[in-house]
Amino acid sequence: MAEKGKLIVISGPSGAGKSTVVGKAIQGREDMCFSTSVTTRGPRPGEVDGKDYFFIDDERFRQMVEQGELLEHASYVSHSYGTPKAFVEQQMNAGMNVILDIEVQGARQVREKMDDAVLVFIIPPSLEELRHRLEGRGTESAETINARLQRAREELKEASLYDYIIVNDKIEEAADEFAAILKAEHCRYCHRKHLLETM
Amino acid sequence: MAEKGKLIVISGPSGAGKSTVVGKAIQGREDMCFSTSVTTRGPRPGEVDGKDYFFIDDERFRQMVEQGELLEHASYVSHSYGTPKAFVEQQMNAGMNVILDIEVQGARQVREKMDDAVLVFIIPPSLEELRHRLEGRGTESAETINARLQRAREELKEASLYDYIIVNDKIEEAADEFAAILKAEHCRYCHRKHLLETM
Repeated sequence: MAEKGKLIVISGPSGAGKSTVVGKAIQGREDMCFSTSVTTRGPRPGEVDGKDYFFIDDERFRQMVEQGELLEHASYVSHSYGTPKAFVEQQMNAGMNVILDIEVQGARQVREKMDDAVLVFIIPPSLEELRHRLEGRGTESAETINARLQRAREELKEASLYDYIIVNDKIEEAADEFAAILKAEHCRYCHRKHLLETM
Repeated sequence: MAEKGKLIVISGPSGAGKSTVVGKAIQGREDMCFSTSVTTRGPRPGEVDGKDYFFIDDERFRQMVEQGELLEHASYVSHSYGTPKAFVEQQMNAGMNVILDIEVQGARQVREKMDDAVLVFIIPPSLEELRHRLEGRGTESAETINARLQRAREELKEASLYDYIIVNDKIEEAADEFAAILKAEHCRYCHRKHLLETM
């Protein structure tokens, strides 16, 4: 039987490089997957139900919230998104480490519902560097960039919610840190105590 | 300024391979050192004061215990040993990760005195394998081996004191796990929060 997987929540300011760092750390690994969310919005061209999202209607979403079937959820202007607990647990029981890329509010909900989730906050080396990266994309107005920086400042205040902080200065090092966190978490007493019982 | 180091306590049954695993993990690293103990026994030929041990007399030892200058201490038939807090903190402040190879009772004392010490328990894959390894040394009587196994059984009951469990089945993997724990611990929120304050 495969060793049970972990739920890894990642958050961090837009532009901190979360996806790049995590993508590099989990490249080629078959014990890692991203969580699949439920959403009330309709599928876009090419999106596959059960792969990109689980597409559900408002009624089913409300039901899932009421019955505690979502690890976390958020509603935007006209649509809602959430992380289905059963899906995540099924993956973990099959030995997969499940990655959940969500915002601070969602991470707080996960923390309350799942004691042994691992929360990782990925940040840029400085706000100055974050500005530099956002400007480097060349796709956003000065106004949008200022709004993102302001939002990053707010998010950084919530860092104490997280177990680990990764500073994404050099991608290689940040990815190594992410991989080390994962390996170390699998060595935790609570994760391995069953081995002691059968010695 | 160097990032502050960590205090890493390692314990585990005799024959589990603690020194081999840790030795392999820290090979060539300049940010790692072993703690130097104080002892009331006299130096043996070749032992250097301040390197192998700090050699002190009974009166000074008693004083250190009374004034809380020892992170942990133990007394055997005629001599006492202890870990000097000031020495460990000085090393940590200079950026060194300090390794303390001690028994469970000592680890418990460290846990009480130093919140952020990292406690690692290194165990063999099974008691059967431990017996096999002890027998393989060819240096100990059946009686001694049975006594060690009995002691190992007792020690394993104390595993919940530790943050991490490393199963030393393959040395390479166990050493990788030790290195990962160290790297992950340096990413902990409490270790990095100062970075957030200066962003």
